[in-house]
Amino acid sequence: MTIYADNAATTRLSDAALQAMIPFLTDNYGNPSSLHSVGQRANEALTAARESVAGSLGAQPREITFTSGGSEADNQAIMTAAALGAKKGKKHIVSTAFEHHAVLHTLNKLQKQGYEITLLDVHENGMVTPEQVAEAIREDTCLVTVMTANNEIGTIQPIKEIAAVCREKKVLCHTDAVQAVGHIPVDVKDLGVDMLSLSGHKFHGPKGVGALYCRRGILLSSLIEGGAQERGKRAGTENIAGIVGMAAALEESVRNLADNMAKMQRVRDRLIEGLGEIEHSVLNGDRAQRLPGNVNYCFEGIEGESILLLLDDKGVCASSGSACTSGSLDPSHVLLAIGRPHEIAHGSLRLSIDETMTLNDADYIIRSVKETVALLRGMSPVWRDLVSGKKEFITK
Amino acid sequence: MTIYADNAATTRLSDAALQAMIPFLTDNYGNPSSLHSVGQRANEALTAARESVAGSLGAQPREITFTSGGSEADNQAIMTAAALGAKKGKKHIVSTAFEHHAVLHTLNKLQKQGYEITLLDVHENGMVTPEQVAEAIREDTCLVTVMTANNEIGTIQPIKEIAAVCREKKVLCHTDAVQAVGHIPVDVKDLGVDMLSLSGHKFHGPKGVGALYCRRGILLSSLIEGGAQERGKRAGTENIAGIVGMAAALEESVRNLADNMAKMQRVRDRLIEGLGEIEHSVLNGDRAQRLPGNVNYCFEGIEGESILLLLDDKGVCASSGSACTSGSLDPSHVLLAIGRPHEIAHGSLRLSIDETMTLNDADYIIRSVKETVALLRGMSPVWRDLVSGKKEFITK
Repeated sequence: MTIYADNAATTRLSDAALQAMIPFLTDNYGNPSSLHSVGQRANEALTAARESVAGSLGAQPREITFTSGGSEADNQAIMTAAALGAKKGKKHIVSTAFEHHAVLHTLNKLQKQGYEITLLDVHENGMVTPEQVAEAIREDTCLVTVMTANNEIGTIQPIKEIAAVCREKKVLCHTDAVQAVGHIPVDVKDLGVDMLSLSGHKFHGPKGVGALYCRRGILLSSLIEGGAQERGKRAGTENIAGIVGMAAALEESVRNLADNMAKMQRVRDRLIEGLGEIEHSVLNGDRAQRLPGNVNYCFEGIEGESILLLLDDKGVCASSGSACTSGSLDPSHVLLAIGRPHEIAHGSLRLSIDETMTLNDADYIIRSVKETVALLRGMSPVWRDLVSGKKEFITK
Repeated sequence: MTIYADNAATTRLSDAALQAMIPFLTDNYGNPSSLHSVGQRANEALTAARESVAGSLGAQPREITFTSGGSEADNQAIMTAAALGAKKGKKHIVSTAFEHHAVLHTLNKLQKQGYEITLLDVHENGMVTPEQVAEAIREDTCLVTVMTANNEIGTIQPIKEIAAVCREKKVLCHTDAVQAVGHIPVDVKDLGVDMLSLSGHKFHGPKGVGALYCRRGILLSSLIEGGAQERGKRAGTENIAGIVGMAAALEESVRNLADNMAKMQRVRDRLIEGLGEIEHSVLNGDRAQRLPGNVNYCFEGIEGESILLLLDDKGVCASSGSACTSGSLDPSHVLLAIGRPHEIAHGSLRLSIDETMTLNDADYIIRSVKETVALLRGMSPVWRDLVSGKKEFITK
């Protein structure tokens, strides 16, 4: 038995996406740039996929650039705003301390090139406010980039209000919506953002494909130079099968959004409640402003990696933070950003569910986590010190 | 009936590649960075694919970085050499006038950043020589980048000799081998290059995936910043299905290389001979130093685009040059580089075949092209002027 509760890392490809892809992995193998009929069939599919993705986001087709994934889209968005800013002598960027590394590391690169970066503090509940953004914007600010939903703790940021602040101050606004698209309503015009990144495999689409929404009128910079694909802004033969699969997955996710959100919230709430019964645990991220599929707890006195391996033995696939940093021994930068001390930031567990998870699955997970936490605490010298009063508990 | 003769634009996915991909598009959907068993299965597949691709190229697994395609690999290789060069005050790059745009446009970008670019002239037969490279290298040269085989005219460059010149002069040597890998023997150690780019969909692998070979000891720069994937040099969740499919396609291509080359050469030679019977035609690219699957002719007095559309009506898929530039009205930069005048550079036809094409197919193509050229010339005012002596023929 396997219960997969790591959907924030990646999701299972949906049947609709796979079925949409198969023709482009078999008979429809043309290059969309080719003039002959085999190529033109691929080109028609590319056009249809662009219209579909645009439609799913409330954008115009020409505002959608297909990329190899969310990281590339984040990089391209930020480098675009930086290049546009530099032309006007504006080299200051506002972001937050708990962005994905695709954003933070790109900002690091820009910092080395002479840009100034302000990373907003994140409140203990995992939120930043439009007021913080307004205060941080300066005369020379060229970009505000704040994620729509955090990949570890699932908090949903007030992007619409942040974008309004940016518009008022005439600063470009980008949002990394990789964890949000397909999970909560995302309409680029309603949000009012200038650029938005998404990734196919986070909503039951294929890996290796994503998209960047870039509002009409903003001159996108190329990250990958070469052929004239994607209106000259993203070179390389298009990953047609991936693009078509992503479009199909997104359509399906958007169509079933309300239903899926309700299903996931019910299971999520059961998990949050059940795991909250574990003593000296703390929920990370705001209880209300939260993705319908995200649960993230710290358990005092244990190590995140041990809990994952023991849960895996019980058939439960979970993570301690983001998959992208799982090789690292450092505690999660997200948990540190919301003020969790190192001692407990190491003992985190993220469960990210999809609409197929049942309440029975949730109950099994709760039992498994309770057993595992008890087992690990039984062997933990730190826990012994806490219980004996040698060390003080951080959590209640 | 469709005869697909545009394999340099893209190829049909092989059955072996598709079968290798299917598990990763269905049950094995894990993120290789995840610690649980679903993720670890994906990670094992990633490791195996890296070993396989490395083995197919004579490289070490750690020398292989997976990318979203050949263009990205070209960009990353060139930006890497440029960054390493800048540290030593070396900002001169040697390349050729008929590289793919993924190379040429990246060099343009660097030129705007203060790098000096020398583009070697290409001889009329579509070749550059090691002597030209040796002469062009200066004290401040940080990179020589020359393609292994040209994508339009199929000429195979003396990369081993060029790499030897580079090694002697202590200059990094990159080659865009996108058209060569899987088509002719390519062994990175035998060639002696420092970096080499390849693209999955050019040898019956999937679109949207490629690789960059980078010799151990060279510090790769990231083009896409973010997570720690690909040893921190290429962020973004790995396109496992694509990577596994590419590895399978490459293994198969390399295993059958000698057989396939012999098959293709026979058909290619029939095409070259048959089309050579058309008066006032000229073969582009060296007759001997040529990819086994490439045929490229100019026919005086006609337009490339018209011939393609008429051939498509007869079920023959071909191209006039590279697919990446097919939207453009400019004549091919490759044909201009080998000295073809504008008048005839417009009337080019590229046939790029794979191992499944038969001599019967070739004969059908020859008949179709002959009919089409005759039809178009019958309607062409330029041809009338040539025949009447008002204009002079360029070709014999």
